[in-house]
Amino acid sequence: MTENHAGLRGITAGDTSLCTVGKDGTGLTYRGYDIHDLAEHARFEEVAHLLVYGHLPTQAELDAYERRLQALRSLPSALREVLERIPADAHPMDVMRTGASVLGNLETEQSFDEQDWHIDRLLAALPGIITYWYRYSHDGVRVETASDDASIGGHFLHLLHGRAPDPVHEKVMHASLILYAEHEFNASTFTARVCASTLSDIHSCVTAAIGSLRGPLHGGANEAAMAMLEQWSDPDQAERELLGMLERKDKVMGFGHAIYREKDPRNAIVKAWAKRLAEQVGDTTLYPVSERVEEVMWREKRLFPNADFFHASAYHFMGIPTKLFTPIFVMSRVSGWAAHVKEQRANNRIIRPSATYTGPELRPWVPIEERG
Amino acid sequence: MTENHAGLRGITAGDTSLCTVGKDGTGLTYRGYDIHDLAEHARFEEVAHLLVYGHLPTQAELDAYERRLQALRSLPSALREVLERIPADAHPMDVMRTGASVLGNLETEQSFDEQDWHIDRLLAALPGIITYWYRYSHDGVRVETASDDASIGGHFLHLLHGRAPDPVHEKVMHASLILYAEHEFNASTFTARVCASTLSDIHSCVTAAIGSLRGPLHGGANEAAMAMLEQWSDPDQAERELLGMLERKDKVMGFGHAIYREKDPRNAIVKAWAKRLAEQVGDTTLYPVSERVEEVMWREKRLFPNADFFHASAYHFMGIPTKLFTPIFVMSRVSGWAAHVKEQRANNRIIRPSATYTGPELRPWVPIEERG
Repeated sequence: MTENHAGLRGITAGDTSLCTVGKDGTGLTYRGYDIHDLAEHARFEEVAHLLVYGHLPTQAELDAYERRLQALRSLPSALREVLERIPADAHPMDVMRTGASVLGNLETEQSFDEQDWHIDRLLAALPGIITYWYRYSHDGVRVETASDDASIGGHFLHLLHGRAPDPVHEKVMHASLILYAEHEFNASTFTARVCASTLSDIHSCVTAAIGSLRGPLHGGANEAAMAMLEQWSDPDQAERELLGMLERKDKVMGFGHAIYREKDPRNAIVKAWAKRLAEQVGDTTLYPVSERVEEVMWREKRLFPNADFFHASAYHFMGIPTKLFTPIFVMSRVSGWAAHVKEQRANNRIIRPSATYTGPELRPWVPIEERG
Repeated sequence: MTENHAGLRGITAGDTSLCTVGKDGTGLTYRGYDIHDLAEHARFEEVAHLLVYGHLPTQAELDAYERRLQALRSLPSALREVLERIPADAHPMDVMRTGASVLGNLETEQSFDEQDWHIDRLLAALPGIITYWYRYSHDGVRVETASDDASIGGHFLHLLHGRAPDPVHEKVMHASLILYAEHEFNASTFTARVCASTLSDIHSCVTAAIGSLRGPLHGGANEAAMAMLEQWSDPDQAERELLGMLERKDKVMGFGHAIYREKDPRNAIVKAWAKRLAEQVGDTTLYPVSERVEEVMWREKRLFPNADFFHASAYHFMGIPTKLFTPIFVMSRVSGWAAHVKEQRANNRIIRPSATYTGPELRPWVPIEERG
């Protein structure tokens, strides 16, 4: 009997030069750059370029990359017509998954020589896909997805709210998209790599990854955190109710991590932005409630907030509907998925593990009239 | 440095009671039943029931199951409208992937209590999805996908050709769908399980699996075999050209297998059907060419045909366009994928392996004006 590695925890399933997670229990690096440096100094497009193209761009490269992405924001009419047929009560991640899949029918990757073009296109089009569906199904508005906003995050906010984004909000979006861009062999990225290992096309890989990120054990923790936080109207009430949850052993979303042991290095960054946004909007409820939850979880359980927890309040302060939180994760992580697909293709072996058989031994056929 | 298991070959990634592949180098069993017994005696719907519901159905169960599947063949109008917007030159696997994804928007799995209904629905709807698109985009015909054909294979042939299927062809479809239904932790099934391990919905899992099956290293070998075989007009020409291919080390599709060492147990079954169909249509070219290729590959390379090789001629003799071969694989394998998703959900741990880091060491941030 061979050893069973259900979940594959601790099994190295391949090489990557993209990311380290949890070195010394805390760190996160993209191609050797510390997440703190990237989130503090970089535009998201610099980080996407780093992941997809392998290096931080020069100013000329960044300018060209941003112009290229801007030029790829228009959605084909057939895709817009599909999005108009998806009802308002659909799961937004189903919309993202379908949008990526439809794009693959209309603009099929015919050869891996074309991969960079399709990656740029997906990065440019996904914010438009979700906002086009959202505004059409919720407000009856057909948004023009071609915009001249400089950044992906600003473009998203612009389409969502119908006005140029607040400069602070655009900065928050840069940091947020950077924090979510890449995280080694997490389940959605691993899904993309398994798909890529059959030498399938980039749209199949991204579509598959979106499907995995949709799962409540993966993406969606920031949405769940928001759903919890918005029930509470002051820190004392939050503490009482949270203690009740802990007593009942309810799951509290947005805390702890499968790999990080001491803290999630992304938390302090997003928490600082959430604080600044709370001040900007004059919030006296959601941010204090969030901080109290953080204190209680540490005091009672020694659990630290992960990247998702303060994202809930930060996104909320920027006027983003809760159901669009996980689609923002997609807009960001597609850069990491794409970089992993390129890496898998460059040194491929089909991913095909074994299983431990636990079923019945060989047995004879039973004709249907003898079954009971 | 931990050991690197790129491709995960030989790593047990979980338990399954569904299937053994290559026990003693040859066998294939579904829940303990030998593939020869199943392909000889069973209807495909019995095998789908075995995989999805855990046991071979009684006559009453089979009748009820077939009626249930028949009743689920109508496609929602929004899905038909989406399929009408996919061009004739799209990749048929992109159509299947998109059809499954769209269905998830219109009929979302809200809880795992509903999983069996959605699995039945996918099994019932996928033949209609591909034929609706195919007939509309190629012939301008909107087919009525609600049919009263007893079997899934007969239903598919009926929609494709616009007439009730030949009874022999319906039998071949039963055998073919049975042969393709399940194969343990192959790449598409493993994709479905990774997706399922995040507790995502069934449509995400099936959509992801279709994306992996699309890859030329996984599905599609029967299409590639057909493309090769139809170039040759007699066995002697085939032998000369094949020897040239082997000389040039060109890849010959439809031979050998990652796990089977001596033979693929599915080959003899589909070969016998291909022979019978050749006699039925009076073929004197494709079948003799296929047999000669089999002889030469064994003589020169000791390589045996796998399940895909004689599927090429068998499907061709039934008038199925080559580009629809891999979608038939989907119509069948969805039963195995669904059974694996149920199994994963029943005893879940999120699938999250590790990676060996091969990238740059920690390095300082470089301001954009200093990059070169």
